This record gives sequence, structure tokens and C-alpha cells, in this order.
Amino acid sequence: MSHPLLDKHRATLDGALQAIHTREYWSPYGEHPSPRNYGEGSDVAGKAAFDALLGKRFEIDQPGVQGWYDQETSPYGAALNVSYPVCDPDALIQAAQAAMPAWQKIGPEGRTGICLEILDRLNKQSFELAHAVMLTSGQGWMMAFQAGSPHAQDRGLEAVAQAWREQSFVPSEANWEKPQGKNPPLVMKKHFEIVGRGVAVVVGCSTFPTWNTFPGLFAALATGNAVIVKPHEVAILPVAITVRTVRAVLAENGIDPNLVSLCVTDKREATQHLVTHPAVKSIDFTGGNVFGQWLIDHCRQARVYAELAGVNNIVIDSTDSYKRMLSNLAFTLSLYSGQMCTTSQALFVPAGGIDTDEGHKSYDEFCADLGNAVSHFLAKPEVALAILGAIRSPDTLQRISQANDGKLGKVVLASNKLENPEYPQAQVHTPVLLACDASDEASYGHECFGPISFIVKTPDTATSIKRSEHLVNTQGALTVGVYSTRTEVIDAMTQATLNAKVALSINLTGGVFVNQSAAFSDFHGTGGNPAANASYADAAFVANRFVVVQRRYHV
Amino acid sequence: MSHPLLDKHRATLDGALQAIHTREYWSPYGEHPSPRNYGEGSDVAGKAAFDALLGKRFEIDQPGVQGWYDQETSPYGAALNVSYPVCDPDALIQAAQAAMPAWQKIGPEGRTGICLEILDRLNKQSFELAHAVMLTSGQGWMMAFQAGSPHAQDRGLEAVAQAWREQSFVPSEANWEKPQGKNPPLVMKKHFEIVGRGVAVVVGCSTFPTWNTFPGLFAALATGNAVIVKPHEVAILPVAITVRTVRAVLAENGIDPNLVSLCVTDKREATQHLVTHPAVKSIDFTGGNVFGQWLIDHCRQARVYAELAGVNNIVIDSTDSYKRMLSNLAFTLSLYSGQMCTTSQALFVPAGGIDTDEGHKSYDEFCADLGNAVSHFLAKPEVALAILGAIRSPDTLQRISQANDGKLGKVVLASNKLENPEYPQAQVHTPVLLACDASDEASYGHECFGPISFIVKTPDTATSIKRSEHLVNTQGALTVGVYSTRTEVIDAMTQATLNAKVALSINLTGGVFVNQSAAFSDFHGTGGNPAANASYADAAFVANRFVVVQRRYHV
Repeated sequence: MSHPLLDKHRATLDGALQAIHTREYWSPYGEHPSPRNYGEGSDVAGKAAFDALLGKRFEIDQPGVQGWYDQETSPYGAALNVSYPVCDPDALIQAAQAAMPAWQKIGPEGRTGICLEILDRLNKQSFELAHAVMLTSGQGWMMAFQAGSPHAQDRGLEAVAQAWREQSFVPSEANWEKPQGKNPPLVMKKHFEIVGRGVAVVVGCSTFPTWNTFPGLFAALATGNAVIVKPHEVAILPVAITVRTVRAVLAENGIDPNLVSLCVTDKREATQHLVTHPAVKSIDFTGGNVFGQWLIDHCRQARVYAELAGVNNIVIDSTDSYKRMLSNLAFTLSLYSGQMCTTSQALFVPAGGIDTDEGHKSYDEFCADLGNAVSHFLAKPEVALAILGAIRSPDTLQRISQANDGKLGKVVLASNKLENPEYPQAQVHTPVLLACDASDEASYGHECFGPISFIVKTPDTATSIKRSEHLVNTQGALTVGVYSTRTEVIDAMTQATLNAKVALSINLTGGVFVNQSAAFSDFHGTGGNPAANASYADAAFVANRFVVVQRRYHV
Repeated sequence: MSHPLLDKHRATLDGALQAIHTREYWSPYGEHPSPRNYGEGSDVAGKAAFDALLGKRFEIDQPGVQGWYDQETSPYGAALNVSYPVCDPDALIQAAQAAMPAWQKIGPEGRTGICLEILDRLNKQSFELAHAVMLTSGQGWMMAFQAGSPHAQDRGLEAVAQAWREQSFVPSEANWEKPQGKNPPLVMKKHFEIVGRGVAVVVGCSTFPTWNTFPGLFAALATGNAVIVKPHEVAILPVAITVRTVRAVLAENGIDPNLVSLCVTDKREATQHLVTHPAVKSIDFTGGNVFGQWLIDHCRQARVYAELAGVNNIVIDSTDSYKRMLSNLAFTLSLYSGQMCTTSQALFVPAGGIDTDEGHKSYDEFCADLGNAVSHFLAKPEVALAILGAIRSPDTLQRISQANDGKLGKVVLASNKLENPEYPQAQVHTPVLLACDASDEASYGHECFGPISFIVKTPDTATSIKRSEHLVNTQGALTVGVYSTRTEVIDAMTQATLNAKVALSINLTGGVFVNQSAAFSDFHGTGGNPAANASYADAAFVANRFVVVQRRYHV
């Protein structure tokens, strides 16, 4: 049994399967918004498609429409004025359940083929989606394009490939023949059907509305589940575009489009009603600890895949490439104003300073040099605007202000507000760097989301490593880094990250950054520390989203 | 990187990997206690090894010994008089944690090789283990041998194979090379280490002390975790023998034997202290709903893999093989006095009776015929004693008594107590069959563990199917059966079991029974209904027991 869409996209699936096994570089979706990747005029057409969405109702034919929601805002201050249907969660759940049996019956081949077709269609909408991601999340254009479109599609494909690997390992049938000595063997025919656990809810976040949504969406869908996507109420548009495309492809292939629906609401109670519904069997969530922990505590009927807060950190011991280290760090701290779940927040530096290829640098010199590196990197306004994007949340603005006022630590580099000529109301802020002591855990030792980082003075590197391990164990982290020219420091840091179960980047001084993870190669999160209970995308991320129901009889 | 023990047992591993993929019949461990499988004199030697354990301390060099426990009992009334060290759970946890890093470092190849060697050694102890299983669980000899030794080893091997499949898919390293157009590519070396989540606790049950323990034990161990096995306080000996062998093989291979330890206690508080310890990251449990639900509710720091109560059931609509159907049912209801998590408890029969190859049988005729079939099957005392074994729990004895008194339904066949000449104190009881109406859910609609089954009168087969689906959805079930000559009934039952997520056996009239599942082919439980949240053994049973910790650097 195969499916025409599986045949059509077989090379993509095989490439993904090969890549998740070798973990070598691979991607089917062009990273650069170039005509070579996307065709002549695709940029203009994508922008036009995006513009055509603004200022009107986003039509999507879902059941249980109760009203329209139009309170989405842009951190760029852009006027979107899109309104979305608000649907009764119970109606969405009921429709989702009704759509599931046909989705089960089409089998892994059909589901995988259709998911691959959806990803291909979303890829063709990359420009349209990127504009939507940029204006809702506040990301700069290039990042919105890459993270919002091809990289998000990569993550979706990665989940589809993992799901295919697990599902295709289970045969649809078997002939079971057990010898009975001199008697005739026992012979049975067995059938094995893959059945999704039930309705999945994917809760989106405001900063990465597609990148953080696609893994859960495609993992749940590919494994036979209906999916209700509940976007963050300020970053709906990219999710709405996605869901509309998913529904279109489903309908074209004879599947009830209500298998995947959009649940727009800014009412906490409506979301809580949705996620605690007995029919909901899995929840994917990216966001803060308060709601994340609430989900884990209250949605006991469901598997919860949660990415929560963390304190990413870097141990700085020594380097043979001081300038490039500072440049690398400056990029990491600046990108999207640190509004990434992977941005480094705490940089541990020994009180006695560090050895570098430019001589010994005292702690204070390092602080000053990193501040200068950030300032230098962001000196050209066009670079700064492109890199920083805009601040998404008022809470982040408030934290920046507190940090600037010296309330969180000694200010090494203050945050400046920049003007964006294209978007005069955009909230653009450069990073703030603070200096503090290792004992000031009250300030640096919990997540300060946004462009706020601490250069933490420790007695020595051994203490830095201990502090790093402790932070990961207690607060969680998705990324940890180390800079050192000494093997014993790298080894100790390696052991610390094995203990605390966090990914380690060593001596990044070039074009790879600690806050970036590459689909098919890097696991995003380990699922083994408090920052996340799951990883994008491994076997554990997909294997428990379905069960195998067998039947057997004699032949 | 390989490991000598992986090379030694490679054929076994490859056979298991092939079998879990094809789900065809396969087993490396001889099912029959014959010299051909186990060598001349192995039965005598095994019995001698078992006898040598009785009446003394079971020496096992574990830390934190606080005293000795000697209250194990036998449902056969046999005097075991073995005493076991009672160890401080904190000391066991601490020692387990200390042993884990070396177990991590040896890698999947070393861990898998050592697990395969352990299974091979346990297989050589099959007779010794079977005697221990028989006298602690109350199983008959042949069942104790098969389920307690080779079949349990099969289940352990199945978990090792699943764990190997997942772990070996993750490469230990990768060369990542990302093109940068005309610039030199970004090149990184990446390492991926598989790290167990932490200390695993496997809680054993009294009826299947090895069969239900081996999947969790081997799944956790193979994926890099330390394991503390907490046997049921009345069925310790087979677990103690197992743990001693595991520790011996570990020590022979340079691994700290405290990686796997035995935690004997009859104090609920000690068990609760153990399972809620922050270092404990997974718990495997088989048993009742009260403690199972307590574990799920209170051990939030751990993944809980739980097999709980259920109401297995069969829909009887029609048959072209009436006598053989009755014989098959009689065996299922009698085996080990129904003390199996897979024994059928509710048999749904239409009020209007059923069509058979021997003519139409009224509901009352069916009841009488099934009662006669059971009586006939158990007519010879030597057959009855071998099949029934002995009743393990006083609670089960009480339920049999209540059922005999007509308190649970109209008695179709009363339970008799049989004498066992070899074990005069053995509690041997034949099955009790009750008749009741579909509306009497208060009696048949919750688990009555033991040899108590209900022939439930329904208006028609369509209602039977609905009742079956409802029971599975609300009470859970590991097994469901159907007897029908009509395609539309089979189809409806198939859909009902897909809806309720339970395995279906169709028209079993020969040497396969609804209460038996074959390793490598049948999934034991789906993990999708209230009877169990996991299945032996699929990818989901192993994939979340470890995380992948990566490190990357430029080359």
C-alpha cells in the first residue's frame, strides 16, 4: 500500500530519514529568500498575498463560530486589522473527533504523503508566511524568513520523518506460524493498525509562531491525530495561514478539513476548557513556566510536551580567538533582542580574568570588551534594525527598563531605544549587559526573557562549571557553551552537561551560534532538564502519540 | 565501537530485531523444559539450585543493610524460609547513581551486549527460576516454567531489541558541513551521547514476578539507567535470583553491581519514599488501581509505565465450531485460576442465544454448556492441579467465596476447592461462572481478579459490542475477543476495538488463547485504554527512558 503523495515526495522523506540518522547537514527547503530557491517574483507575490490578508476577516470554514477576534497587535506597530473566527472549543473537538477515523484508515503512507504535500505547499508560501511571522513576532526580516519558513518547515519535516520511521516499523499484517513439534503448527493472521491517541492541542507562542508550532503539529498529525492549533493571541496570522493551507490540502485529498483547526481566543478559561477536555490526548506547548506548569498539573488526561523557561549559560575560561569569540557572543546576545529560548543569559567569567590570544584579560576588561563588541556590531542602524527586530512583550520592555536602571546588576552596557524609520512605533532596543557576582543568583539565576544578560564573576572556572551545572539542573537550559583552550576544562564541561543533560557548544567563533540549532542534526533541547520535557525531534517526541491495535485469527 | 558480548549475542539481537519488525513467530529461548532445549540433567540441577536457596539468608552484597525480611509466603503452603536483606532505599539510590556514569560511558553496544549476556544466563537458570516462580506466584509448573522463564526472557529481549533500535539510530558522532555559497562551508564535529534519565524503579507483582518485571527492568537498563527492583513482598525469590545474576554479570564486566539492586520491604512508607525520590526518573508498575493511581498522582518527577486493572471481555455472537469454542474458553477461564491480567471476565451473549454448528443454543444452554466444558476440562485431578495452580491472594479467595454464595450473580458453575496431595495446604479452586444481565454493571463492570467470570445477557450482539467498547473505554482491558460467523459482526467488533484501543482475538478455537500474548509478535496492551498506559514492548516503551546530549565544535 502506498499513496500518490508519498510517491511524489519520497525523495524528500528519504533525505530526511537519512539526515536524522547521520545528523549531517541537510535541508530540502531553501534557506535564502532568493529567486534561485523560490522562483522569480516569488518575493513580490508573497508580499502581495500577505498584504491581501490585512484589514479584513480571515475566512476559514470552521464549525461553532461564535464571533470574531481582531485584537492581534504587531510589535512593529503595523496595522494588521485581521479578524479571526472565534469557535466554540467543544465544536472544534467534536469535529476533530469525527474526522479522525478516516485519517486513521488512510494509514501511515497516506498521512505521511499528505503531511509532505502540506509542507511543500507551506514552503511555496514562505514569503507570505515570513511577512506574517515578522510583523506578529517582531523578528527582523531575514530571521522571520529563515526561522519562520524554511527552518520551521525543516522542523515539521523532521517530525514527519521520525513519525514515519516509527510507524513504518510496525507491519500492517503478519503471518504467525508457531511450530508444534510433530503436530501441525499454530498459524495465525495478524493485523496491526496504528491509531492516534486522540485530539491533539498545539499551543503556539508569540515569538516563534511557526518554528515552535510545526514540530508538535506535524508529529501529532502524522501519527494519526486530529490537531487543534491554539495560537498566541498576538501572533495568530502565521498560524492561521498555516492551518488554512493544511485544511486545503486535506480537503483536496478527501479528508475532512476539520481534522485540523484554529482555536483563536484570548480568554484563559476557553483555553483551559479546551486543554482539559477528556478527548484531548496530547498538548504541545512552548512558553512560560506558569502556564506550562499549569498544563502539566491539570491536563492529566493528556501527554504534555512542554518547552518552558530556562537560564542558558556560557562558561568562559580562555580562548585563542578573543575577537572572534566576542563577535560571536555579540551576535548571539543581539539576535532578535535575545527573545529566543536559546539565548545565553549568564556568562560565567573567573574573577582573575581569562587568557586569550591577545594576552590576559581581567574580568573588567572582558566586560568592557563584550560591551564594545555588542555596540560595534550594532553600530550601523540598518544592521541593528535587521538583527534586533522589535520587542514582542510589554513584560520584556519592563525588564529592559529595570535592567537599565541598575536594579538587576551593575550596568556594563545600557540598552538604547532605536528608531525604525519604516515602522515608527516599533519597539527596538539594544541588549543590556549587567555585571554581577556568582552569589547574586536572585538576579541572574532565573529566566529574564529578552536582551538582558549577566556577566557573572566566579572565583574560578571550576566554580563556573559547577554553577552552570547547578543552573541547568534547577532552572533548566536549552543551550550551554564553553570557551576554553584547555582540554581539562572542555572535559569537565562535557561531563557537567552530561550530568545536567544539556547540549554543549564549544568555542564557537565563526558562523555558528549557541542559540541556533540545525534541524535534522541538532536536537533542540534534550528533554532531560527543567527547560523542556521533550526534544525536537526524536523518537520519544513521536512514539507515544499513537498506539498499535491488533487483531488476530486462525487461517 | 562494538563490545565482545554484543558480538557474542549478535545473532540473538538480529533475530529479535527482525521479529519485532515482521511480528512473525520467533523465540531464542526454548519453551519446553526438555533436555533438548536445556541439556541433560538441567531439570535436576535447577531443582537442586532452587532447593539450596531455601531455609537460609539470600546473600546479596548491597549497601545500607538494615535488617532481614523473612515473611515471604507460598500459595502452595510450601515452607520457603528465605530471608532477604532490607536495605535503606536512600543507600540503594545513592549507589545506583554512583554506578550510572560508567554504564553511560560503555555506550549502547556495551549495555546491549551485557543485557543479552544477562538474559542468556537467566535462560540457563530457567528451571531454578521456574521453581521460584511456581512456589511464590502459585502458578502450575508448566506455566511457571514457560511464563516465568523463557517467555519472561523473551519479553526482556524484546525490550532490549526495541531499546537497541532506538539508541543505535542516534549516531555517536557526525561531521556537519553546511555550504555557504562561494564561501568555505561551515564545518562542525558533533558528538551525541545517550544518557539514561536517572534511577529506574521496577515494582513487581505477586502473580507474574518475572514476566511483568523483565520488560521494565531491561528497557530501563539497556537505555542507560540504574534499576532498583522492588518485588512484591510475597513473591521475592524469583526477583532476587534475577537481580543476583544481573549483578554478577555486571561485576564480571567491570560495571559496579549496585547499578541494579533489590529493594525488599513490606512497608508502604518505604516504597513510597523510594518511588517519590527526586533521583527516580521512571517507574514500572503492574498491579491494582489504588497503588497504581497513587504512583501516577504522586511520582510526578518520574515517567510511570503502569499496567492496572481492567475488565477483559468477549462478545459471543455465533460460531461454526461450538465444541472447540467452549474448550478454548474453558482453558482460558481455568488457566492459573484466572489470576492473569488477560483473563476474560465478561462474556457477552445475546438473550436470544447463538447460532452454532450444533444448532441454535439458547442463552441458558450456552451457560450450561460452558459450565460443563469447564468441569469436563478440569475433571482429571492431575490436569486440574497443573492448570489451576493455587490462589495467590486472600482477597481473591474472598471474592471466590462471595461469588459462590451468589452475591455477585446467579451461579452457573460453583467453584470447588481441590486437594493437592503434594502441597496439602495449597489453595486450589476451580472457576466460578455467574450469569447476569447487561444492566448489572455493578457486578461484572469492574475487575474481579481471579477465577470469576460473568456470562452477561444482552438484548443482541450490537448491544454486546457497544457494552464491550464501553467497558474498555471506562474500565480498561488488555484483551477482547469475539466469536462470530458473520462478517458484519467481525467488522463492527474490529471498529469497536479500534475506537477503544484494545487488542482483538477473533474466533479462537484451537491452541491459541485470548489470555496469551506472544512476545515479538503480540503487543501486550496497547497503552491506549485505562488498563495500561504503556505496551510491552514498543518504541514508546523505551524511547523516553533516555535523552541525547550533544556537543559540537568547529574543525
